[in-house]
Amino acid sequence: MSRWEPNTVERLQDAAMTLFHERGYSNVTIADIAEHAGLTKRTFFNHFPDKREVLFAGSSALEERVEGYILASDREQRAIDVAISALAAAGQTLSRYSEGARLRRDVIDSSPELQERSLIKLASLARVITAGLVARDPEVRGATLVAESAVTVFGAAYSAWADSPTSDFPEHMDNVLAELRTAIVAASPAPR
Amino acid sequence: MSRWEPNTVERLQDAAMTLFHERGYSNVTIADIAEHAGLTKRTFFNHFPDKREVLFAGSSALEERVEGYILASDREQRAIDVAISALAAAGQTLSRYSEGARLRRDVIDSSPELQERSLIKLASLARVITAGLVARDPEVRGATLVAESAVTVFGAAYSAWADSPTSDFPEHMDNVLAELRTAIVAASPAPR
Repeated sequence: MSRWEPNTVERLQDAAMTLFHERGYSNVTIADIAEHAGLTKRTFFNHFPDKREVLFAGSSALEERVEGYILASDREQRAIDVAISALAAAGQTLSRYSEGARLRRDVIDSSPELQERSLIKLASLARVITAGLVARDPEVRGATLVAESAVTVFGAAYSAWADSPTSDFPEHMDNVLAELRTAIVAASPAPR
Repeated sequence: MSRWEPNTVERLQDAAMTLFHERGYSNVTIADIAEHAGLTKRTFFNHFPDKREVLFAGSSALEERVEGYILASDREQRAIDVAISALAAAGQTLSRYSEGARLRRDVIDSSPELQERSLIKLASLARVITAGLVARDPEVRGATLVAESAVTVFGAAYSAWADSPTSDFPEHMDNVLAELRTAIVAASPAPR
């Protein structure tokens, strides 16, 4: 099997990335993507509801892995540790996308429409983490805040990783969390 | 001047909030809002580009106040303190909206479309804070992470404040920041 025939979803993703890069996101149609992949528009719509989703194909699988990790985690672990570990572990599977990671990030950064979809995906990920933390420990405090902060760390770690996709993703998570801790810890109360 | 004639923007906002509450967001048209406010659709479009924006009318003013506060801040202050103080100070002017704050939050929570717009507004606020922190101190480290965390705190503080809108907004900011600090500080590195 050649590089271009692994499976339909990947062919569509590869075609979309190539065309977005060459022509700019807004100048590419779904018909263009399907044609470039040697498939039909109908096949595209069997896999993606719209043009934007082709860039976020892995997001449900990521959410499922994160949720599974949280539910299986040691109950003694602190919520922030669980959330960060879950995202670090799930994020390691991003290596499958390493070749196109920087291009994908740059395409998203170039389009307000894609930035919106990215925000929605990250908010959804934070909700999954919040629900997982609560299911794991109904007494947990500040689950939403922990989940949103963990996702903020994930976003920054992802961006750093996309710049050098052969690097270790969990290490980026650790580095960003350390940076956040340094930035937040000694903060004084807001003046009145 | 009666409560219903302070100015056009406020009349449209009040009408929209009333109708969203009574009928649900998706069942209200712009024509309904204009009619309820005793105005025309054309007047509505003079002030808002679409139905969603009527709920976010104060967001540009909020951004301007936050930016002004950051640029005027003491250069000795840490970035997180500046960002939190700016949001606490700007947020105090939310008291003008205190009567409808909980209703507004519940309307937004009821509609995925409005949640998306809210995410976009918060992301825009984070970008304004990042740019302000960099303009104030080009050597600042982790400005994006600080800005995004401050906006996470703002979101949680806003939600807590909306539950009891006569309470002190900056106090909510302090409480949430303290909660975030407690949650993040002792976190250990992610396991490999």
